Formats: sequence, C-alpha cells, structure tokens
Amino acid sequence: TINGDRLWDSLMEMAKIGPGVAGGNNRQTLTDEDAEGRALFRQWCEAAGCEMGLDQMGNMFARREGTDPDALPVYVGSHLDTQPTGGKYDGVLGVLGGLEVIRTLNDLNIKTRHPIVVTNWTNEEGTRFAPAMLSSGVFAGIHEQGWAYEREDARGKTFGAELERIGWKGEEPVGQRKMHAFFELHIEQGPILEAEGKDIGVVTHGQGLSWTQVTITGKESHTGSTPMPMRKNAGLGMARMLDRVDAIAWEHKPHAVGAAGHIDVYPNSRNVIPGKAVFTVDFRSPDLAVIEAMEERLREEATEICEQMGLEIAFEKVGGFDPVEFDKDCVQAVRDAAERLGYSHMNLISGAGHDACWINRVAPTAMVMCPCVDGLSHNEAEEISKDWAKAGADVLFHAVVETAGI
Amino acid sequence: TINGDRLWDSLMEMAKIGPGVAGGNNRQTLTDEDAEGRALFRQWCEAAGCEMGLDQMGNMFARREGTDPDALPVYVGSHLDTQPTGGKYDGVLGVLGGLEVIRTLNDLNIKTRHPIVVTNWTNEEGTRFAPAMLSSGVFAGIHEQGWAYEREDARGKTFGAELERIGWKGEEPVGQRKMHAFFELHIEQGPILEAEGKDIGVVTHGQGLSWTQVTITGKESHTGSTPMPMRKNAGLGMARMLDRVDAIAWEHKPHAVGAAGHIDVYPNSRNVIPGKAVFTVDFRSPDLAVIEAMEERLREEATEICEQMGLEIAFEKVGGFDPVEFDKDCVQAVRDAAERLGYSHMNLISGAGHDACWINRVAPTAMVMCPCVDGLSHNEAEEISKDWAKAGADVLFHAVVETAGI
Ligand SMILES: NC(=O)NCCC(=O)O
Ligand SMILES: NC(=O)NCCC(=O)O
Repeated sequence: TINGDRLWDSLMEMAKIGPGVAGGNNRQTLTDEDAEGRALFRQWCEAAGCEMGLDQMGNMFARREGTDPDALPVYVGSHLDTQPTGGKYDGVLGVLGGLEVIRTLNDLNIKTRHPIVVTNWTNEEGTRFAPAMLSSGVFAGIHEQGWAYEREDARGKTFGAELERIGWKGEEPVGQRKMHAFFELHIEQGPILEAEGKDIGVVTHGQGLSWTQVTITGKESHTGSTPMPMRKNAGLGMARMLDRVDAIAWEHKPHAVGAAGHIDVYPNSRNVIPGKAVFTVDFRSPDLAVIEAMEERLREEATEICEQMGLEIAFEKVGGFDPVEFDKDCVQAVRDAAERLGYSHMNLISGAGHDACWINRVAPTAMVMCPCVDGLSHNEAEEISKDWAKAGADVLFHAVVETAGI
Repeated sequence: TINGDRLWDSLMEMAKIGPGVAGGNNRQTLTDEDAEGRALFRQWCEAAGCEMGLDQMGNMFARREGTDPDALPVYVGSHLDTQPTGGKYDGVLGVLGGLEVIRTLNDLNIKTRHPIVVTNWTNEEGTRFAPAMLSSGVFAGIHEQGWAYEREDARGKTFGAELERIGWKGEEPVGQRKMHAFFELHIEQGPILEAEGKDIGVVTHGQGLSWTQVTITGKESHTGSTPMPMRKNAGLGMARMLDRVDAIAWEHKPHAVGAAGHIDVYPNSRNVIPGKAVFTVDFRSPDLAVIEAMEERLREEATEICEQMGLEIAFEKVGGFDPVEFDKDCVQAVRDAAERLGYSHMNLISGAGHDACWINRVAPTAMVMCPCVDGLSHNEAEEISKDWAKAGADVLFHAVVETAGI
C-alpha cells in the first residue's frame, strides 16, 4: 500500500501555493500560482526519477519507464488548477495520488512492464476559460487547439497568450500519445459515499453536461423616472428564467440537476435598469435525452418570457459533453483493487465532469472516487480525511499496477 | 434669451471627455476623465470672469459678483459626473446651463443684485460610490463628511483617497455657504413632457427613494454533483426576490417603481452554485408611506423565501431620501419664466433624485426640466434637441435673474 502520510504532506504542501481566503485555494489556470504549482510538481516528479514531458496545451506528463520497450504507458492523473474559491483536493488528489503511485513503486523497487505516466491536465475547472476540461478535450480531439488558444477570460486575455506568459507552453504536439489505459482518482464532490459509509466509489458512468450561455437584451434606463410599463428589464427576465431552470431540473428528477453559477448584468449600476444580462445555465443528467429535453424546455419558456417582456434573447452553447460509460475492464480493475484491499465500495455515477470523461474517448479509462465531507466541493471548506485519501490512492495504486503488469 | 448654439457647442465639447462606447459618456466621478471635465469647466468659468471656489468634497462654485455686498448668492447648477454608460445631458445640461446664464448676463452687460454661483456637485450618480447625491448631501448636512470619505468603490478605493488623487479636494469647509435660492435645470429622464408635448416641466415635487442592499448567503457547492435537495443557491433566492420586487412595485401603482440595477453573485463561476448574492433594490414613490410599505413587504417576502430555501439574508440601507416638496416661490419663479417666454409647460414630479432634493433642505429650491427623447436616460443613447435645451436654459435664465434681481 501507499504512504498515506507522504501523500497528505504533499497535498498540504501544494495547498500553500495560491491560498484562498477561507482555508482553500485560488490557483486558477494559467495564473502565476498555477505556474508555481506546476514547478513544484515537476520538481517532485524529477526527484522521483521521472522525465517530464510538456505539450502545446501545457499538459504535463511525468514518465516512469517500464520493462517492455513496446508496451504503451498506463496514464494516471487529474488537474492542479482550482476554482477561484476552491478546495485543496479537487483535482490535486488525482495528480499527487499518481505521483504517490510512482513513489511507492520506487520504495518497493518494483518495475512495471508498461511505463507509468502521471499527468496534470491544463484548465480542467473552466472558470477562467470556458469550457471545462479544455486541454484533455484538445488531447482527445474534441476541440481544435487554435480554438482553445482563443478562449478569453473575463478580462479579455486569451488562453494561448496566458499559457505562453506563464512559461508552460511545450513543444510536443497535443494528442499524439497513445495510452494503454487511463485512471483518475478524484474526490466525489457529492454526498453519496459518505452517506452510504463507503470508502471507495467505483465510477461506472459520468453524467453529461450542457452549458448554455444566455444573453438577454432589454433597454438601459433610469430606475426612478422610467414608468413601470415602459421598462425592458433584462435582469428581471433573467431572474424569471433562473427560477425556471430550477423548476425544470426538479421536474426531471431523480437524476437531473440545473443551476446558473455565472451571472452578470450591465451596466451593473444601482440606478440603471439592466439593459443586458448574461448568464450560463448548467444542466446535467446521466441521460442525454433528459439533458436535451431540459434544454428544449428552457429555450421554449425563456423565449416566451422574453416575448412577454419585450426582451431579446440569444443562446450560445459554451461547453458540454455527453454522458460517459467507462471501460468495463478498467472499472473492474478498480473494483478488484478495492475488494482485494478490503475497502468497502459501491458503483457510482460521477456528478461532475472530469478529464477522464474526454480521455475515455481515446483510451480505456476508469475513475476511483473517495468521499468528501458533506459532499461539499467548489468551496474553500472542501475537506477529506487522510484515511479517505489513503484508501483512494491505495486502490489507484493497485488498479494501475495490475494494469501495468509486473 | 440665452445663446442656444453656444450652450449646445459647450455640451458637445464636454461630451468629448470620457466618451462612452455607444455615443454617450463614461465620465464617472473621481476618475481622470472627471478631473479633465472639471478643468474644462473651470477654464470656461474663469474665461467668463468668475472666481472658482472648491470645497473639501470637491464641489465647485463659480461666482459672478452682484451689486449688493450684503446679498446672498443665487446658486444654480447640477453635476458633471455620468453613469458608466451614461448620456451627454444628464447633469451636464444643468451645469452648462448655469454657465450659459452667466455668459448671457455678460453678453447683455447685466449686473444682478445678488451674486450668482454656478455649482458642480461631486458624485451625483452614486454608481461608483453609493449613495447618489453624496456631496450635495454632505453640503446639506445629511451625511457626515468623514463617512462620505470612507465610501468604497467596487475595487475598494475610497472616495476620500480618489478625490485627493485627482487633485480636486479643496480647502473650503463643506456646507458653510448660505444661499438666497438654488435652481437646477435637468432633463426629465422620463417620458411625460414629450408625450404631453410640453417644452418645460415645472418641478413641484421629487419622489422619494430607498436603496436597500440585500446580501443572501447560501453555500457554494458543485453544480454537477450536489443533489437538488442539498442546494443552498443564493443566486436562485435572489432571482425569486427580484421577481417580487417587480410585483410589489406594480401592486403600488400608479406611481411606485422598483427594480435592481446592481447584481453580483459569488464566486461567479459557471460550475459553482452561488454561495452569496448581493444586489440593491431601488424602490421609489412620491409617497413616503408607499415606499415604507414596499420595503416592509419585500423584507417579509424575502425572509420567507430565504427560510424556505435555507438561505440567510441581511438588509442594509445604502441610500435614500424622502419625497421632496420644492419651495413655492422658487417654483412660481420657474412657472412665471416659462409663461413669460411663451413656452408650453406643466407641473411635474421628478422621478429621479437630484442634488436639488438635498439643497432644498437648506435653501429655497426649484427645478426646471426639459424633455428627452423616448424618456430615455442612464443610457448612452440619451438624446435631447437643441431647442429643448435652449428652452430649458431660457427659463432657467429668467427664473435666476428674476430671483437675483437687477
Ligand atoms: N470535477 C470538477 O469539478 N470539474 C469541473 C467540471 C464540471 O463542472 O464538472
Ligand atoms: N438624476 C439622476 O439620475 N440622479 C441619480 C440619482 C437617482 O438615482 O435618481
């Protein structure tokens, strides 16, 4: 088994970079803090005897050689970037859990047949540059690299320019690596494992996601002197739609969810009726037909609301992926590992999107999940126990070594 | 009568400073552009033979001497600051209309008994630093100067520091000047004069205003993996309240209005359920009891919404003033002037707040209004005709000269 103390120490060490304001982290993608986190990870990987690769999307690949020169590597990893008010484990556990697999192999002096490569995928979170899982998406051939470079943050800086600026743009073409398999360890980010008292989630599926950016256009005017019947209040139109987003998600239970996390009104002045509102609706379900039905309903109802209010509306799809079914053999390797180690486990559908969801398109893939306190994530208060982290990394270790062969 | 071409040219000249993105202006208070606008105004005033006073709130006072050394000055003016996406006339017309009064007196070589002072009040708009009409409010003894200095903009810069930075903080104590009367010319910012085909609004009253900043606290969590029943979505709570704000205002017609122009959610990330929402509710009515009833209703309903949703709520009053009744004699002077000049006119209740609303507390005050196209203001497309501007300034001229005596 892996060294739980060492894994935990590394998690705490990484969490010092880009601290948040409430005990968590703000280490958003392609910031100076991201660069600092990457440098620390590289240093650790090199100390563990790995050679570091870097592709043109800034994806990092730390390689430990195998014994069979013809064998494709087993990849393992996640992401080091965080939400603006993110936790210390979301993504980081998967990357440092991968590093811990290598450190443990070194301790035990084990050589695997297949090489093992630990990855850090760039911009998984998608907050600064939409969509989420951008660079694993380019790797998997979902997005064009040029299009990815043009993604803009709220200040108009592009992904390409920022990647260059922080000095982490590599030479290697993106997506040429072939994988024997890919494993990602991640915290659940939801409440099920904790509620069921299980150590390990064997992730069989991932729910699909659709991000629709909605722009409502009304007419800026004075909040005091514009009579009620003359108003075209884009903020009010948005408010009515947000209520519908919630209702639509509830109507599609048990498995659908919906909310808007991103909301901006213009000019955002106390005495100006908003002339424009821009927000992103996030609908998810394990069932593609349900996602499509929710989107359809929202478009219909939103259009009706806007017609009644004299507002204009435009929809733009800014992210999304279809529901995922992970590779049966890889999933079984995870389940077998949990079983062998005596950890309690259950099948799980991932509620969040992960780099594994894209990599699953190009390589046999599976995920290991561990519980998090109160199911809380995307919050600085995100917490896990050292035992949970160790159990997750143990299962990852066994699944990876089993797949890589000795 | 005044020189309509000269007035118009000055309006267009001032509009070149801090241009907007759509033909209007972004000359927000205490920005470099505000400083530039002030410098141009000072230059014009000095060229017209006035002496410029400047108080510790940055209020500007351009004085033309009278013939009676014991007579208190007649004040006239408005504000040069604009909304972030503001028009070319809101406020500016009243300041440059005042300057045109002086220029016309110079042309005609008329000496008035009372001195005439043209003012530019600092931070009328209240967008960058709430509340609106901040410096006329300090002048009238409504706000403490120290409190005003501590007002913060969205980036945490204070009013006091920014006033110092742009170099327009004077030595003169605030509010010591005594006024014989105060007149403010302003565009209506509403649709009534245009609809009624009148040249001039004789403003008898101003409606009252209440700004309540509402902070809703929920729990940041993942939009994908947090089950619907576990969510504490502060953005959704806000949305439901915004719908109530609108409904409450409608229920209090014909004269009440309500909206929220300022809306922020945190952390404003597409895949994070908002843990906090902050927005400002703007309720207005000419009847104080109606404003109070609307506020009461909102508090009740908002509290109920939040209880149902597991959200916390806090209310903070960030601005407001009671309905205003202007001075009967000054109002009559405006009406007489319109009558004498043959302009069509009607009584009006101002829908917006104005510096005159505070100055009315310390001096006999009245306002002159002219129409604006489609009643549109707080919008870069705000427009008036040269004839409307001339009519307004003519009436202002006659009312001021009548009051100042010859
Ligand atoms: N795991 C995670 O939080 N990924 C971000 C993409 C998403 O919103 O699901
Ligand atoms: N006239 C004007 O727009 N003043 C700003 C204060 C208000 O919101 O009424």
